[in-house]
Amino acid sequence: MSAKKNIPQVNLVFTNHVALELDRAVELIAPSSVHVLVDVNTEAFVLPLLQAQSKAVASASVIRVKAGEMFKNLDSLTSIWRQLGDGEANRNSLLINLGGGVVTDMGSFAAATFKRGIRFINVPTTLLCAVDACVGGKTGINFNGLKNEIGMFRDADLAIISTLYFNTLTSQELLSGYAEMIKHALVSSMEQTSRILSYDVTSYNPDSLLALLEESVGVKQKYVVADHEDRGARRALNFGHTIGHAFESLALERKSPLAHGYAVAFGMVGALVLSRMKLGFPSEILQTYVDYVRHHYGAFEISCDDYKKLIGYMHHDKKNDRPGLVNFALLKSPGEVEINVPVTDDDITAALDIYRDMLGLP
Amino acid sequence: MSAKKNIPQVNLVFTNHVALELDRAVELIAPSSVHVLVDVNTEAFVLPLLQAQSKAVASASVIRVKAGEMFKNLDSLTSIWRQLGDGEANRNSLLINLGGGVVTDMGSFAAATFKRGIRFINVPTTLLCAVDACVGGKTGINFNGLKNEIGMFRDADLAIISTLYFNTLTSQELLSGYAEMIKHALVSSMEQTSRILSYDVTSYNPDSLLALLEESVGVKQKYVVADHEDRGARRALNFGHTIGHAFESLALERKSPLAHGYAVAFGMVGALVLSRMKLGFPSEILQTYVDYVRHHYGAFEISCDDYKKLIGYMHHDKKNDRPGLVNFALLKSPGEVEINVPVTDDDITAALDIYRDMLGLP
Repeated sequence: MSAKKNIPQVNLVFTNHVALELDRAVELIAPSSVHVLVDVNTEAFVLPLLQAQSKAVASASVIRVKAGEMFKNLDSLTSIWRQLGDGEANRNSLLINLGGGVVTDMGSFAAATFKRGIRFINVPTTLLCAVDACVGGKTGINFNGLKNEIGMFRDADLAIISTLYFNTLTSQELLSGYAEMIKHALVSSMEQTSRILSYDVTSYNPDSLLALLEESVGVKQKYVVADHEDRGARRALNFGHTIGHAFESLALERKSPLAHGYAVAFGMVGALVLSRMKLGFPSEILQTYVDYVRHHYGAFEISCDDYKKLIGYMHHDKKNDRPGLVNFALLKSPGEVEINVPVTDDDITAALDIYRDMLGLP
Repeated sequence: MSAKKNIPQVNLVFTNHVALELDRAVELIAPSSVHVLVDVNTEAFVLPLLQAQSKAVASASVIRVKAGEMFKNLDSLTSIWRQLGDGEANRNSLLINLGGGVVTDMGSFAAATFKRGIRFINVPTTLLCAVDACVGGKTGINFNGLKNEIGMFRDADLAIISTLYFNTLTSQELLSGYAEMIKHALVSSMEQTSRILSYDVTSYNPDSLLALLEESVGVKQKYVVADHEDRGARRALNFGHTIGHAFESLALERKSPLAHGYAVAFGMVGALVLSRMKLGFPSEILQTYVDYVRHHYGAFEISCDDYKKLIGYMHHDKKNDRPGLVNFALLKSPGEVEINVPVTDDDITAALDIYRDMLGLP
């Protein structure tokens, strides 16, 4: 009587020979036609490179959507469906999603529902998408004012993960994706945490970053395989996100939006403080992390006047039914996660005070 | 590298104690909220009965869509999503689809994609839906002028199949559904074919029809389990549909639409004639079937002037790439199906001539 399980397939390739891998995969799949989805950014900066190097992409029909989270909506989805139909895609066609999380989330959902499902390959072009959005089978669009309100779980037939296109990203975009890599390291092990916190992503080398990326995505995969439809263990991946989402909402309200990865980086400061308070997380690792954040990310400014609103967002984010308590994923140490740790509003208030102290906020 | 398999679950109950079964199931599922989808017909004729008898339905929020195939579209789907959101449905909510094929196809797709998938129960209220649409996991909407262009494969958590609400159906609606039952019998066995062709659905008894329905749906289930995503064996269920769809298209063009089941009933005459010609299907059973059709369904009138157009539709329907050949599912005898039998345009012309003779058309 339970919801159907979609058994996850782990079809990930880590390579900087993207065109080669893509042509090999398309030859194996042998689709009746190939369609490539781009937004205005990937159309300008990435598509020409791939068209020059990949036979499959050179002969593919191009499907275009506008760029950005605000266009991750029903209109864009409808437009992809229509362009697939107009391009005479049939059940044996293949869609290649070339872009960041908006393109892969929306393109994957379009493919999974066109003629009841065609095959698709994700080629992430941002670090955030490579490490997070394009892995784990979550597809969808925003709807009715809510993020990812409509969608489904469906894994790509293949995701080709590379660092090849990151040279078009700003430092801020790199750091935004890197925050999720830090999260994966923290929920994985002390060794991985040390490796990640001693690397400077803003001056990355394509091969060394690819190796770190493969290790990082491996952590996410482990949780996804254990809990594909996000009903239990996968909540460990929510580490830092309860406070992070609250920071995002507050920033939105202030009309100066905070990049998701930055919100997570700051949210993890709060979550590690809570981990220290509730589970005895080691203070020296907390300090190392805070130093990394101050140096690379700066600080998200809050005052005690914001606490009530922030705590309100946290209650809403987790849909908690017990008043005065919010469930958090917290860490006993790097690699030791406890999910559903109940935290009182007073605990959160104390943690936010310490957050301000540690980040040098007035 | 192949498309993901959605392992079918066989959650079918055949009962005329619908309210009892529904309340039992809802208690087991223990959803956070219950929503029931109706169209204007089921809202008027079926919903009040269930609200009086079922605790779950009495307290459910009601979601409404317009009735009929022309409203099986993106607007109605969007409206269902919006009504689910406005009714505060969350990931643990349940949707009950109460209606014919349009309601169950569209409601199932809406549920399967709302917040990446909530649970749903189908309660078919027409014979055609009970025997066909609500079983097998095909969900979706029409889009861009094409039937079921957008959708996915997802089985209901439960389908409660009864004959309880068929008293609101016209004889034509009963016969339309019954054509699919005849088809299931023909692809299943001689015994089942005899049973089906000696029953008069227009003067049915609720219990005896329920027993026939259970046997009939069992045939479909067998093929669905073998080939959930309709890439091979399931094509046996296409028996009668290649010519049937061509009749439907011709009728549409004449601006006097033919009910789907009637088109299938007439299409099966053509398919049995071809089965006789190509595979030696026994002539006495062909004759028995034709007598049944003449008596209950009448005839769909065609002349030799229509042949070219009909054959054109058949080529398009099967998306055949070899000119002059159409692939058919045909029968050697009741229960012995051969799929992908290549049939020439000349064979089809001969079969249409015999179709006209046997049904007494000029």
